[in-house]
Amino acid sequence: MGKLRFDLSVSLDGFVAGPNPSLEDPLGVGGEQLHDWAVATAAFRQRHGGAGGETGVDSDVLAEIAHSTGATVVGRRMFSGGQGPWQDDPNPNASWWGDDPPFGHPVFVLTHHAREPMTMKGGTTYTFVTTGIQDALEQARAAAGGKDVAIGGGADVANQYLRAGLVDEFQLHIVPVFLGGGARLLEGLPDFTKLQIECTQVLVSPTGVIHARYRVLN
Amino acid sequence: MGKLRFDLSVSLDGFVAGPNPSLEDPLGVGGEQLHDWAVATAAFRQRHGGAGGETGVDSDVLAEIAHSTGATVVGRRMFSGGQGPWQDDPNPNASWWGDDPPFGHPVFVLTHHAREPMTMKGGTTYTFVTTGIQDALEQARAAAGGKDVAIGGGADVANQYLRAGLVDEFQLHIVPVFLGGGARLLEGLPDFTKLQIECTQVLVSPTGVIHARYRVLN
Repeated sequence: MGKLRFDLSVSLDGFVAGPNPSLEDPLGVGGEQLHDWAVATAAFRQRHGGAGGETGVDSDVLAEIAHSTGATVVGRRMFSGGQGPWQDDPNPNASWWGDDPPFGHPVFVLTHHAREPMTMKGGTTYTFVTTGIQDALEQARAAAGGKDVAIGGGADVANQYLRAGLVDEFQLHIVPVFLGGGARLLEGLPDFTKLQIECTQVLVSPTGVIHARYRVLN
Repeated sequence: MGKLRFDLSVSLDGFVAGPNPSLEDPLGVGGEQLHDWAVATAAFRQRHGGAGGETGVDSDVLAEIAHSTGATVVGRRMFSGGQGPWQDDPNPNASWWGDDPPFGHPVFVLTHHAREPMTMKGGTTYTFVTTGIQDALEQARAAAGGKDVAIGGGADVANQYLRAGLVDEFQLHIVPVFLGGGARLLEGLPDFTKLQIECTQVLVSPTGVIHARYRVLN
């Protein structure tokens, strides 16, 4: 059985998204800087049907994630940016992910509002799970074919799985920028202090991004 | 002229001290875990007149800091933990730093309350500066003999120097623990987003601590 893991790009001041996220600016003001390292890579471009891009550590890290992941769980806001009933969601079909979303595998969307599954191009399917994080994980595991299940975000979903003791590994991509505000990595929860973790790998890119992998021991 | 730099140990959830700091627990609940990597090293023990300790990356990093630093600026709370007039401070002589403090060079204490300098064992002197961070830096530079000036903390003092555009370099020691609360690294200030920084060195210790150095470009 694959592992449950997540990847988060984080600024030096500890933010995983900038302030004031919106439909136009889903990662908040300045938040796209957290992902510049990924977007520039050959692995990213290849995945999106393009050519060229940077090879090297950043591209290798991204390719490893893509290769090892068989299914992804995401929060409703990561999917569409909205909340509440789907008919009130201004972006109900998650058009920002495109017709050929970058996942390329089954995606399970945590929501309180039931909905029929969607099949996209390139192997991405969206299944809407209203029965909680444990059930979403079980469905994702069944769909992952022995590969890892990724928590696609947001940070609050990663927090929920961490608190439930279900996360096996995570990787932080520590980006040399300051965002000054926004959504925090692992928003201070006292029970995080019980987590025993071990650093298992650190890779440093010429872009100054530190890719640090951690295993959860308990 | 030496550089102005600071070193901060930070938890994975972005804290430089744990919650509820006190005289007994100056780094807050769990905060001492941020400094375990340093305390265990041969460089630390040697500095404190002891022997033994771990050699390797952590010790080398600590020795480099000690070797390159000629003077340190600290905030009042870092010095004594107190505030207000000295006669009301329960720890006015900063006994937690000992008679032979680990600095071993001139230390400039930012305070609103004037006081005569103190001379300690081992080369540490305490000079109390009531005329602001710029003046404290000038005094420290004059005392540093061409070596670097370190901002000894707390994080709020580092923030003030960063905002004033006076910091040349900083090093984060990213420790694989979660603290769940406490004082944050570089507490979200919008003007940090203007800082242009470059990662200049990353060293990884077998203890899982990532030592990441950054240069401020503007």
